[in-house]
Amino acid sequence: MFRHQKELQFEVKVDRPDPMLARQVQEVLGGQFGEMTVMMQYLFQGFNCRGEEKYKDMLMDIGTEEIGHVEMLCSLISQLLDNASPEDQAEAAKDPVTASIMGGINPQHLLVSGLGGLPTNSNGVPWNGSYIVASGNLLADMRSNLHAESQGRLQVARLYHMTNDEGVRKTFRKMLARDRYHQYQWMAAIEELESKNGVVVPASFPPEAEEEAQEEAYKFWDLSEGEASSEGLWATGSAPDGTGHFEYVANPVAKGQIPNPKIPATEVHHDLDFKK
Amino acid sequence: MFRHQKELQFEVKVDRPDPMLARQVQEVLGGQFGEMTVMMQYLFQGFNCRGEEKYKDMLMDIGTEEIGHVEMLCSLISQLLDNASPEDQAEAAKDPVTASIMGGINPQHLLVSGLGGLPTNSNGVPWNGSYIVASGNLLADMRSNLHAESQGRLQVARLYHMTNDEGVRKTFRKMLARDRYHQYQWMAAIEELESKNGVVVPASFPPEAEEEAQEEAYKFWDLSEGEASSEGLWATGSAPDGTGHFEYVANPVAKGQIPNPKIPATEVHHDLDFKK
Amino acid sequence: MFRHQKELQFEVKVDRPDPMLARQVQEVLGGQFGEMTVMMQYLFQGFNCRGEEKYKDMLMDIGTEEIGHVEMLCSLISQLLDNASPEDQAEAAKDPVTASIMGGINPQHLLVSGLGGLPTNSNGVPWNGSYIVASGNLLADMRSNLHAESQGRLQVARLYHMTNDEGVRKTFRKMLARDRYHQYQWMAAIEELESKNGVVVPASFPPEAEEEAQEEAYKFWDLSEGEASSEGLWATGSAPDGTGHFEYVANPVAKGQIPNPKIPATEVHHDLDFKK
Amino acid sequence: MFRHQKELQFEVKVDRPDPMLARQVQEVLGGQFGEMTVMMQYLFQGFNCRGEEKYKDMLMDIGTEEIGHVEMLCSLISQLLDNASPEDQAEAAKDPVTASIMGGINPQHLLVSGLGGLPTNSNGVPWNGSYIVASGNLLADMRSNLHAESQGRLQVARLYHMTNDEGVRKTFRKMLARDRYHQYQWMAAIEELESKNGVVVPASFPPEAEEEAQEEAYKFWDLSEGEASSEGLWATGSAPDGTGHFEYVANPVAKGQIPNPKIPATEVHHDLDFKK
Amino acid sequence: MFRHQKELQFEVKVDRPDPMLARQVQEVLGGQFGEMTVMMQYLFQGFNCRGEEKYKDMLMDIGTEEIGHVEMLCSLISQLLDNASPEDQAEAAKDPVTASIMGGINPQHLLVSGLGGLPTNSNGVPWNGSYIVASGNLLADMRSNLHAESQGRLQVARLYHMTNDEGVRKTFRKMLARDRYHQYQWMAAIEELESKNGVVVPASFPPEAEEEAQEEAYKFWDLSEGEASSEGLWATGSAPDGTGHFEYVANPVAKGQIPNPKIPATEVHHDLDFKK
Amino acid sequence: MFRHQKELQFEVKVDRPDPMLARQVQEVLGGQFGEMTVMMQYLFQGFNCRGEEKYKDMLMDIGTEEIGHVEMLCSLISQLLDNASPEDQAEAAKDPVTASIMGGINPQHLLVSGLGGLPTNSNGVPWNGSYIVASGNLLADMRSNLHAESQGRLQVARLYHMTNDEGVRKTFRKMLARDRYHQYQWMAAIEELESKNGVVVPASFPPEAEEEAQEEAYKFWDLSEGEASSEGLWATGSAPDGTGHFEYVANPVAKGQIPNPKIPATEVHHDLDFKK
Repeated sequence: MFRHQKELQFEVKVDRPDPMLARQVQEVLGGQFGEMTVMMQYLFQGFNCRGEEKYKDMLMDIGTEEIGHVEMLCSLISQLLDNASPEDQAEAAKDPVTASIMGGINPQHLLVSGLGGLPTNSNGVPWNGSYIVASGNLLADMRSNLHAESQGRLQVARLYHMTNDEGVRKTFRKMLARDRYHQYQWMAAIEELESKNGVVVPASFPPEAEEEAQEEAYKFWDLSEGEASSEGLWATGSAPDGTGHFEYVANPVAKGQIPNPKIPATEVHHDLDFKK
Repeated sequence: MFRHQKELQFEVKVDRPDPMLARQVQEVLGGQFGEMTVMMQYLFQGFNCRGEEKYKDMLMDIGTEEIGHVEMLCSLISQLLDNASPEDQAEAAKDPVTASIMGGINPQHLLVSGLGGLPTNSNGVPWNGSYIVASGNLLADMRSNLHAESQGRLQVARLYHMTNDEGVRKTFRKMLARDRYHQYQWMAAIEELESKNGVVVPASFPPEAEEEAQEEAYKFWDLSEGEASSEGLWATGSAPDGTGHFEYVANPVAKGQIPNPKIPATEVHHDLDFKK
Repeated sequence: MFRHQKELQFEVKVDRPDPMLARQVQEVLGGQFGEMTVMMQYLFQGFNCRGEEKYKDMLMDIGTEEIGHVEMLCSLISQLLDNASPEDQAEAAKDPVTASIMGGINPQHLLVSGLGGLPTNSNGVPWNGSYIVASGNLLADMRSNLHAESQGRLQVARLYHMTNDEGVRKTFRKMLARDRYHQYQWMAAIEELESKNGVVVPASFPPEAEEEAQEEAYKFWDLSEGEASSEGLWATGSAPDGTGHFEYVANPVAKGQIPNPKIPATEVHHDLDFKK
Repeated sequence: MFRHQKELQFEVKVDRPDPMLARQVQEVLGGQFGEMTVMMQYLFQGFNCRGEEKYKDMLMDIGTEEIGHVEMLCSLISQLLDNASPEDQAEAAKDPVTASIMGGINPQHLLVSGLGGLPTNSNGVPWNGSYIVASGNLLADMRSNLHAESQGRLQVARLYHMTNDEGVRKTFRKMLARDRYHQYQWMAAIEELESKNGVVVPASFPPEAEEEAQEEAYKFWDLSEGEASSEGLWATGSAPDGTGHFEYVANPVAKGQIPNPKIPATEVHHDLDFKK
Repeated sequence: MFRHQKELQFEVKVDRPDPMLARQVQEVLGGQFGEMTVMMQYLFQGFNCRGEEKYKDMLMDIGTEEIGHVEMLCSLISQLLDNASPEDQAEAAKDPVTASIMGGINPQHLLVSGLGGLPTNSNGVPWNGSYIVASGNLLADMRSNLHAESQGRLQVARLYHMTNDEGVRKTFRKMLARDRYHQYQWMAAIEELESKNGVVVPASFPPEAEEEAQEEAYKFWDLSEGEASSEGLWATGSAPDGTGHFEYVANPVAKGQIPNPKIPATEVHHDLDFKK
Repeated sequence: MFRHQKELQFEVKVDRPDPMLARQVQEVLGGQFGEMTVMMQYLFQGFNCRGEEKYKDMLMDIGTEEIGHVEMLCSLISQLLDNASPEDQAEAAKDPVTASIMGGINPQHLLVSGLGGLPTNSNGVPWNGSYIVASGNLLADMRSNLHAESQGRLQVARLYHMTNDEGVRKTFRKMLARDRYHQYQWMAAIEELESKNGVVVPASFPPEAEEEAQEEAYKFWDLSEGEASSEGLWATGSAPDGTGHFEYVANPVAKGQIPNPKIPATEVHHDLDFKK
């Protein structure tokens, strides 16, 4: 069960309204790697966690923090939209400077939300459940979390340069610091988990079943012309878990058959040879 | 530019048709973490790569390999659907065993694709572009790739236990081996990149801007009752890049204001106080 | 079965083309609460209606009217796009005033529809079937209809202020009047239905099953700090159907257990404890 | 900012696992009118609320409660999936009873979530942001809330009959009671708001602009054959706000023009007459 | 403006309820090529048609017919769901035959629509606006229409074999006949349009701009191993409009450059070389 | 299995960056009829092809070519975005000319992709699998292919006029030539297939089942007022396959019944008559 307190986690104050920026900020609210994504991802991982109390607790701590981040961004967007109104939009046609700003505004901020944040990205595409994952495998999910925080912080960093509003930038600095912590956090969790079960997900796949195709687990297939790819750590030396050595296959040969599918029954209406 | 050869990368042969399994295999073809996802993700990362030839080449190598994995899974699904037909479906109502299988079949395998693979997941939801990311930041993207291969291999491993068809299992063992290699590959790439620029994405955010909110970058906020979360590596000791020490904040206090938004203009039709 | 006559329900004439407005009008054509939504919602409710001829007939009357509203808005958008062309777009880069307008245009109005209306909202997101509901419960559906007409009329009212084109405004005034009638209509239908079966949906849930949790049906849980919420009609006095009295629970206590889920089988590849 | 406590709001205990029911319960977790919808809808309405503290506080109270309902349903689904595993799926082909159950299972509960709840509906379609609305107009939004609780409670009531598991039914009875209260709550809020500003949304549209099309606001257009629709309260008597009398138009006549659109410029590639 | 009459276009009577078939029929109601698609596609093409009255009129005739087809399929699905109920679902667990049927049922037919048709396909994916096109180019659109009727009739033909209910089959025979006519109709329209402007869409692209790349317009590039593709009409002889001869390029050579993209500015946070 | 070579199929060089054009070009990369669509459509048709080697080979040839077109468009978009940066965006507010361009830019090109192509259309809607079809019926699919190339070439032609950048136009001219060839190609394939099995899809539907509704296969129903539609080839003369004569039905009469659906069981909670 959850409880809410009135204060925001950090102060959110903008120096001046900026409806074009409001549209851009939607990306980190309701986009693929926005706060709605990490909030829902951590909450579902926490709700579904089976065993290992300390991970469940930790997921609930951070998931709960992220609900508050969605709240902060809604407050930010509302402030950026202050004073915008349908009539300003009508005025816009007359003055090029205003018009240009209005051309870049999200029309749904006026029409649909009445100057509030929307559960959509910067192009108005609604947030959806396929942005998140809660797989029941902790290592797989911590890697998903690290990836989400990496993409998310990257976007906030880019957004930071899109405005010179000091108020907005101050809020972003707090968010960038928290995103930095969250990257650390998932790295630390990953380190713990890898040291227990090894680096490959899932670790529990039966070793005897691995054996048959063992040799395929260390080969780089050079399928794009050029061999620059042979220079990376992935092409030489040992696998990260020391179970084998990498091999760079410069001229890979297909090992499968040419498929030769069956002609289906007439009532599939393939229409090949049906008159026979 | 691309070229195609007729042979599959690995042999794909099923011992017997199994339409219910065909539906399940769709998850690793056209689901969130299926082969379409890694194929499109690596190709877009490769196409968009600016600078660092060896990464671009490597992304193109593996992206090109994954197109062939989509091809293999389509062949697998087609074979699992051999002999299925609309009339079988009609027969099903009469016999409980057949009926039960037909109850679990994907109706689109008969109606829409005529016994072929579909660009959808195991519930028939179409693959979509928001499953992938190509951000222009290599470290962020390699983490996305590691996460995708971790989730993907987890799903194939689960699928492995859903069938005792030795032909299908053999194909899965090849895929599991390649997915293992691909996890190694992204780990190796990540190691290279982290050793160059540090572990936080993005590395290039100006240090002077980081400073102000520096202290927020090491704190764990305990917002869910219970302190089990204090036992993890994320709560004590040094940050992975050694720039600070973690702090467990057991009773976190909100630092922001209570939001106090402006009443908008009448023509937004908020309907508050408009009669005044 | 349906028939079409050439005349529009009301006159639709614009004083001058305005491609930016054309984009905004898409919201009330193909958005969440646009005319496509009410058209499809009323038609599906009418098609699926079982029993009570007068409701079915009424739903078919208004559903049929709304097809004509989609027609009117397509005509409106076409007129707003008159004279727009790909070359105008190219010219735009040279003049800031034109450019600003072009910056706000929907590129699909040029590229995809050739200057016609699209089945999308103002941000280009395609209309989809999950915008509508036809539940087979008349009272539930009439409430959905009242909500849709309320949101829809709100958006048209906001749009009204975004233009000073008298032709467009005249069309909107007709639509606003019809939307007003449709709000009245659903209120009247709701009043009829509530007076028959009571105000709670569904009314037919067995009273003996209601009993056990009876006390939970009148309590307000104060889970957000502050007690301003105690001042509303929902916190004091009788329930609308007079079956009980509201109670404001200022310090709500959780009544459930701490969840304690089972560890799953190894082949789910949870990776916890699998080495044991 | 939010906080979490370990206990669930109400006890959630199932008598026995039932994977087919787990799939069905997804509808009220991640469907159009599931708990994710009301949770996100109330939170966004609360976050965006401008003015009228008691409404904002109330929205935050109930939005916060609904996060806990998502938590409860995840716990319910996890318990219904206990003991399900990929290998059970493989076994299913052998026994018709088991097979039939497995035929109705959601494959993603095994493959994707590892026996946990998913942010999707009962057919696996991901929850998305267009299920919700926060318009900035309180009356419009309260009507949306009443509609959502009506559809939601209807679905839980139907679900109630799909199981005879007493544990599950007990949880549903709590939810049905809360959904009843929430219907009362929005009715009470609506009554307050209507008594202030009148029943039409938005109330603030300028009366002088209403005037021109005044007569269209009281007419029922009989566009579907048959006059059963003339028997309802919407066809006779006074409008709910007493501003006019309803009129049943039995033979409605179109009032608009036959559209006569302009031929566009050649570079739109309409291909009509381009050789002239 | 539209009008509705009570009778269905053709008789729709089922011999016995069949909820599994009801799910399958959803494909041709709300799927990619279902009746909702052709209905909305023809209506939008008709609404947006500029010039050439006979095409506009024809599009409105057939678009209006298709609304009636949606109506027929809703009636069909309702009848197939007669007698289904939530309690039947609960009973199902006990008997394998019933269970198997229930395993294949669409849970939303019970929970969401209360035994009525849904605006979704056979897997429950909502219909959406990107299924349709109205491009403003008549020839392009007639080809889209012919393709939609071809895919649609194929699906109904497959569905025909999935049932031996004579009532259902009779309805399908009417639909198959109408779909046959509609294929003829678009072929005839295409013939008319091609004879006027030529076979290539769009015809109005300036010939002088075509010239430069003229030679590329007749070449088949053999990019997949094997030359079986050289045996088709597309590889030898004249182009359909007699403007050139096809050429089979057995060893195609890339004509473009190796891309060499610019390193972006630091504030894009590419993280390459940023320390320099 | 596939291989990649570094060179692009054709040269792609832009004369100058143009972020607004980059947004528009997304339509033909990731839109409904963009290169991702034809690439995935031809690959799935090729992968799933059963029988008729020359068609399978041909589909693989062109599917493989189209992967290279996606590559070309990514290169084009990257070049159009050269020099764009978040800070340019911030500068934009100061100068109306720049601002207007920035108002029309896709914010995701900066925030999400770091100046690269996205798997989305010109409004940012992600590409999805329901854009494509691979039905297993060759004639149906070739018609889909012809329609896709017709819509696709139309869009590129319109785009051509939106820029006067000679570099961009040169690339478009190559694409227009290839799209012309691809239209020829599908026409030729269609001609072959129609001459074998006849023009109606599917050809294999049993003639005896066609008979009963035979007369409905040649009638045009005039359901929209006005008889301009009687002037087309579809209204008079013979069907394209000479099996019958068209008939124009000027006053069509409904042939079906008035639906009379059953009242469902109480536990569906229809709420009609439940108190009886």
